[in-house]
Amino acid sequence: MRAAVLRAGEIVVDDIGELTPGTGQVLVETVACGICGTDLHARRHADTFVAASRACAMALFDWDTSRDIVMGHEFTARVIELGAGIDSSVAAAGVKPGQLVVGHPMVRVDGRACGVGYSNDYPGGYAQRMLLDPAGLIALPDSADPVAAALTEPMAVGMHAVNRSQVAQTRSAIVLGCGPVGLATIAALHHAGTPLVVASDFSPARRALAARLGAHVVVDSNAHEPVAAWRSAGGRGPTVIFDAVGVPGVIEGAMVAAPRHSQILVVGLCMPKDQIWPAVGINKELTISFVLGWTPDEFSTALQAIVEGTVDVTPFITGHVDLDGVAGAFDELADPERHVKVVVHPNGWR
Amino acid sequence: MRAAVLRAGEIVVDDIGELTPGTGQVLVETVACGICGTDLHARRHADTFVAASRACAMALFDWDTSRDIVMGHEFTARVIELGAGIDSSVAAAGVKPGQLVVGHPMVRVDGRACGVGYSNDYPGGYAQRMLLDPAGLIALPDSADPVAAALTEPMAVGMHAVNRSQVAQTRSAIVLGCGPVGLATIAALHHAGTPLVVASDFSPARRALAARLGAHVVVDSNAHEPVAAWRSAGGRGPTVIFDAVGVPGVIEGAMVAAPRHSQILVVGLCMPKDQIWPAVGINKELTISFVLGWTPDEFSTALQAIVEGTVDVTPFITGHVDLDGVAGAFDELADPERHVKVVVHPNGWR
Repeated sequence: MRAAVLRAGEIVVDDIGELTPGTGQVLVETVACGICGTDLHARRHADTFVAASRACAMALFDWDTSRDIVMGHEFTARVIELGAGIDSSVAAAGVKPGQLVVGHPMVRVDGRACGVGYSNDYPGGYAQRMLLDPAGLIALPDSADPVAAALTEPMAVGMHAVNRSQVAQTRSAIVLGCGPVGLATIAALHHAGTPLVVASDFSPARRALAARLGAHVVVDSNAHEPVAAWRSAGGRGPTVIFDAVGVPGVIEGAMVAAPRHSQILVVGLCMPKDQIWPAVGINKELTISFVLGWTPDEFSTALQAIVEGTVDVTPFITGHVDLDGVAGAFDELADPERHVKVVVHPNGWR
Repeated sequence: MRAAVLRAGEIVVDDIGELTPGTGQVLVETVACGICGTDLHARRHADTFVAASRACAMALFDWDTSRDIVMGHEFTARVIELGAGIDSSVAAAGVKPGQLVVGHPMVRVDGRACGVGYSNDYPGGYAQRMLLDPAGLIALPDSADPVAAALTEPMAVGMHAVNRSQVAQTRSAIVLGCGPVGLATIAALHHAGTPLVVASDFSPARRALAARLGAHVVVDSNAHEPVAAWRSAGGRGPTVIFDAVGVPGVIEGAMVAAPRHSQILVVGLCMPKDQIWPAVGINKELTISFVLGWTPDEFSTALQAIVEGTVDVTPFITGHVDLDGVAGAFDELADPERHVKVVVHPNGWR
């Protein structure tokens, strides 16, 4: 089968051989797969990325960077074949050949969970086919748009960030950065009914999307200080500042600007080491929380919100490519005026 | 009156003139006042200290460092005189001339709260007398040891750190650093009934105190990794790592060592900027919480615990000096084998 492969820092299309489902594995055909900012990071900083995982003794983001990987972990797929030893409850839940599904990016190998998309052995959604764990698959309702459903995973990331925050107490939030993660956070804050959401970005296109997704106040980060804008909009007491920028210096700036007792919730991946000012954190009794991923419940809730239309993911999707377009899309995604989310169609863009 | 004054980075004894209680102020005579590690920091890094406060728009730790201050915020005192306009409920609560009290280090000036001990205008407990806010004073029971009661404030700091932590959920804690703040944290963890408390320090004397105050496992930080010791002692799941060291690098080291979903609670004051590794925080979904001070309830609870003997502060007190001994005590406190807490007796050590 064909795949867009990460090889020595470049994305190249190659034939990588066929997959056969082992015991407890499901073979699927990829229908649509979003390109995630984490994939852009992983392409440019693979060694740093893996070093951080190894420092945490995490198997999930650990691969041999001298060898190929096929990324892609935000997908809709069609079931081709259930491997041996799969419980009948899986088919009973509608996961059977021909069915469209979304799924957790993981597979079980000898009972051990392996990540799909950051692995030398298990290709992700930039391949025509994948092997997945049946426990992580959810059958799409017939009414669901399979391309919109591919945004389940990033929407679940936004919901997880909001759920791990103190926003239910603070009743307000400031989102720094309106890339895909910031926008997913804004959509999740809107979904949670947060009364005051302030967003900031330097890109006019992204600010327009932030407003469309439910931010009440949107400011140009080059011209306005977001905490001052929050105060002007009636913000009082502690708040939650979501760092969805992910570049060094943002956390420290947020510490200095934050109201007392606020939480800084780091949801944007920042690969380099970064500086903080502990004395400021202490004086204001701040909390810095780092979050990753989502829970299975949040994943299911995100799909439900997309299918029911309580979260509108249409604004996210700014481009479609087939496998030959992946390398170009990785480059184009650097332009915030042009793109939020590009969806890859490894079996052709129909 | 006489006081040990911080003047251009040195502690000198000088006559600073008398105090007269204004409206809503209480004049007290200092009986005993502990020397706090924060005072040692403030002496050496006054400008950095004030810069951090100004970055937070905090009035509490903001003074003109070119002028004198009299520090000291951990005190027992005797009431001399109530100023005008003090509510009769204050005397009804036993706060009247002749009464021994502990008190919050603050005073009201034209209705505004001012810190006592980090102010150019309001001397702290290294002076013979102070002006205090009656709302922050608690009469000591007759049975109370006035010197032990002077440790109310640092014990309240330990209780606050524990109360702001997730230790009620994690049921275990690791305390890095067994100086006064670390030991107060250990005493508070013991008071809260935490089933597993691991402590680390390079000083044998401080390790012995940690064990005496209730740490279940105590390790030499030069020879053993505290998280490994916690695991050997049966520690599982997330935990709380209290940083009571307060030097650069400790937070990052704790991030790398911490179990997934743990909280790093920064209670030791670290003046310089510091480095963190966001990717590690994200991979493990860590939380870094900064805490300061205590609530009035925690202050009262700390006094009660000392008076009732449920927290034994005797091991903390390793020296007594009069005003002429303060400068020497500041130097000697650098030696962890020799001292934890030195108590100043500005009106003579009886």
